[in-house]
Amino acid sequence: MLVDSLIKARWIIPVEPHEVILENHSLIIHQGHILDILPSDQANEKYQASESHDLIDHVLIPGLINAHTHAAMSLFRGIADDLPLMTWLEEHIWPLEAQWVDEEFVRDGSDLAIAEMLMSGTTCFNDMYFFPEVTAQQAIKRGIRANIGLIVFDFPSAWGTGAEHYLEKGIDLYHSLKHEPLINTPFAPHAPYTVSDKPLQKINELAEQFDLPIHIHLHESSHEVDSPEQRPMQRLHNLELIKDNFVAVHMTQLTDEEITQFAATGAHIVHCPESNLKLASGFCPVQQCLDAGINVALGTDSAASNNDLDMFSEMRTAALLAKGFSKNASAVSAATTLRMATLNGAKALNIDNITGSLSIGKAADICAVDLSGINTLPLYNPLSHIVYTASSHQVKHVWVAGKQVLKNRELTTFDINDLKARIQQWQTKLQS
Amino acid sequence: MLVDSLIKARWIIPVEPHEVILENHSLIIHQGHILDILPSDQANEKYQASESHDLIDHVLIPGLINAHTHAAMSLFRGIADDLPLMTWLEEHIWPLEAQWVDEEFVRDGSDLAIAEMLMSGTTCFNDMYFFPEVTAQQAIKRGIRANIGLIVFDFPSAWGTGAEHYLEKGIDLYHSLKHEPLINTPFAPHAPYTVSDKPLQKINELAEQFDLPIHIHLHESSHEVDSPEQRPMQRLHNLELIKDNFVAVHMTQLTDEEITQFAATGAHIVHCPESNLKLASGFCPVQQCLDAGINVALGTDSAASNNDLDMFSEMRTAALLAKGFSKNASAVSAATTLRMATLNGAKALNIDNITGSLSIGKAADICAVDLSGINTLPLYNPLSHIVYTASSHQVKHVWVAGKQVLKNRELTTFDINDLKARIQQWQTKLQS
Repeated sequence: MLVDSLIKARWIIPVEPHEVILENHSLIIHQGHILDILPSDQANEKYQASESHDLIDHVLIPGLINAHTHAAMSLFRGIADDLPLMTWLEEHIWPLEAQWVDEEFVRDGSDLAIAEMLMSGTTCFNDMYFFPEVTAQQAIKRGIRANIGLIVFDFPSAWGTGAEHYLEKGIDLYHSLKHEPLINTPFAPHAPYTVSDKPLQKINELAEQFDLPIHIHLHESSHEVDSPEQRPMQRLHNLELIKDNFVAVHMTQLTDEEITQFAATGAHIVHCPESNLKLASGFCPVQQCLDAGINVALGTDSAASNNDLDMFSEMRTAALLAKGFSKNASAVSAATTLRMATLNGAKALNIDNITGSLSIGKAADICAVDLSGINTLPLYNPLSHIVYTASSHQVKHVWVAGKQVLKNRELTTFDINDLKARIQQWQTKLQS
Repeated sequence: MLVDSLIKARWIIPVEPHEVILENHSLIIHQGHILDILPSDQANEKYQASESHDLIDHVLIPGLINAHTHAAMSLFRGIADDLPLMTWLEEHIWPLEAQWVDEEFVRDGSDLAIAEMLMSGTTCFNDMYFFPEVTAQQAIKRGIRANIGLIVFDFPSAWGTGAEHYLEKGIDLYHSLKHEPLINTPFAPHAPYTVSDKPLQKINELAEQFDLPIHIHLHESSHEVDSPEQRPMQRLHNLELIKDNFVAVHMTQLTDEEITQFAATGAHIVHCPESNLKLASGFCPVQQCLDAGINVALGTDSAASNNDLDMFSEMRTAALLAKGFSKNASAVSAATTLRMATLNGAKALNIDNITGSLSIGKAADICAVDLSGINTLPLYNPLSHIVYTASSHQVKHVWVAGKQVLKNRELTTFDINDLKARIQQWQTKLQS
């Protein structure tokens, strides 16, 4: 049979089934999807491919899913560090946003983020920011899968005048993007403390009607849970928002009862360990949530509080931190961590029928990692090296929906010099 | 004046003075030392160099000092993960060591570690392992600065029959290495629970006599402090070991009183955050120790419990974890973290007159990091990027005592294919 691509790899970690590592197998891409995964010695007999890749010393993993980003904020990377959360927000990030965020900012910041994500093996991100239509355009142009949050606040910004206006624009955006194959549009009310009950109820109705997830920051810091009369999770629960389409980001402040209550709803958590550490927000009890049956995905948050969008580094931090925090060296194993960064993200975003594992029939969203470097030798278990040792700089090739977007560490959908020049201009402006 | 090398750099972070970032300066290397640091427009007038480097978009930092390693254990990288400490040690590491550790193991494992360290910007390490004379030989051969611990246990191993025998061999090694310019030899009694009072007292006397540091694991886990009748730190204090030549590794179990007591002695701590997390050992209260005036250095521990020897990743984990642990986003700033990974290490090892900062007169131990990649743009502050964003894979050039040991990411003192072949042989043996 004639097919589009044949990738022969030393190892394939499909993620589903769990903990499986295939050796000397080949993956067949045809018409954007994974057509087959079979032993390499049978692949050449069965398939003739227009394009072949012989990836000795490489492992194929599912493209990583960054389940919480504010892509355009990459332009703020490293502009203010080592500051308490409220000083950081009130004296640095918010004034910068008020002064600078417009369509051009979001276009260039999204491009920078997408370039960084593709170069580090991320094939899908879940975004929440102003001018989401611009981020969607750039995602389509650069060939990355994206969940473009229909952002809602009570207060005005450069993008909207208030909750009703945001919602109106969001619904228009949903309709204009619903036939884009790489794009989904969850609702993205910012947080309990920035969106009041009425718009939250409206979002809940619309999310049911359009069958969309709801992506929201929740219980990020002790300040958030200590200030209001009612704990925010309880408030959202009373509003009947917390269901299996509900995606709560951060969740560093959780009682045992809240974990049990949340687990019963089928809702999802996105864990952002590096941002939570950097802003001293608290610790999400990941292993306890997993044990309770909660689907926990992984995200970087923005490059302004991380300071990168590197899911390899995030996986490692998640795996290490869970052990220290729970005082259990067996917590959040390498296999579980990779699953959080792939399939669990797809489940949270309700796209696990499309992506999240290297499974026959799913989209060919693939990341090839070169494990031949000194820092990943010897190699007893490629799954261990992916989480505990490998760097995103070892990502050599990336495909999204069968299209190769990274080839020998070169981005195929960017003019990199043009991008660098645009970022340089923003740097000059922002530091002035 | 004719000099050996002139390195023109976009930025230089000398570490001493603290928080200084020099722009468009050049560093002059002559006869292995830093002869001058001056504005680049003056450098070409003042010096004629045999070799010139024009490092646009690069930052020069002091070569990193990995203040706690077991280099040869790199051969165990990823062989056993996600296990409780005692299972990991008793069922995996110790049986493997009993079966395999000999001179060849230590030679090849040390070579692997040295290659990884040089490629990730580390120019000096502080080691504790069997067959230290072999690690010393490899360090000299490969051109890295090393502190080769004169290891002592009560119990026998492939290298010694008991405390007296280890000490005898250690003293011989001290004498044979004392004129090697790159090598120092601290005493390295393994831990309070593996070395009894008598050899500790003897080591204390000898360390005074030879003016050497004492490098020891201390208060690594709650198990260590809960088991004996007396807390180990108190026991060593009573033995009068804890002085300004005393280097305590881990220190995850500390009362406020112990921090005060330790600070008063002038002794040093080596913080190993990734190993402490991975083995769920506990948290060293780094900011509190720094506030008390303790000199805190940084180390990776072995690649068996990390799983790498990457000081960039270790800096980032240290900076992030300190914030989360202390609930203070200003704890352990970027500048403090880089200082821990350089000058504080040199102080702990009593070699801060030789290395640890880019200061005129010190050895030319230098790391050049390329910050032109997408993941380190925009760039408002190179110090922030070194700690929070840059990867060790962006280290382009490394010098130790003025000799360039890494050139455009190629090791100059290794036959890399020969090294990989030797590691492959060990992998085959160890996984059998």
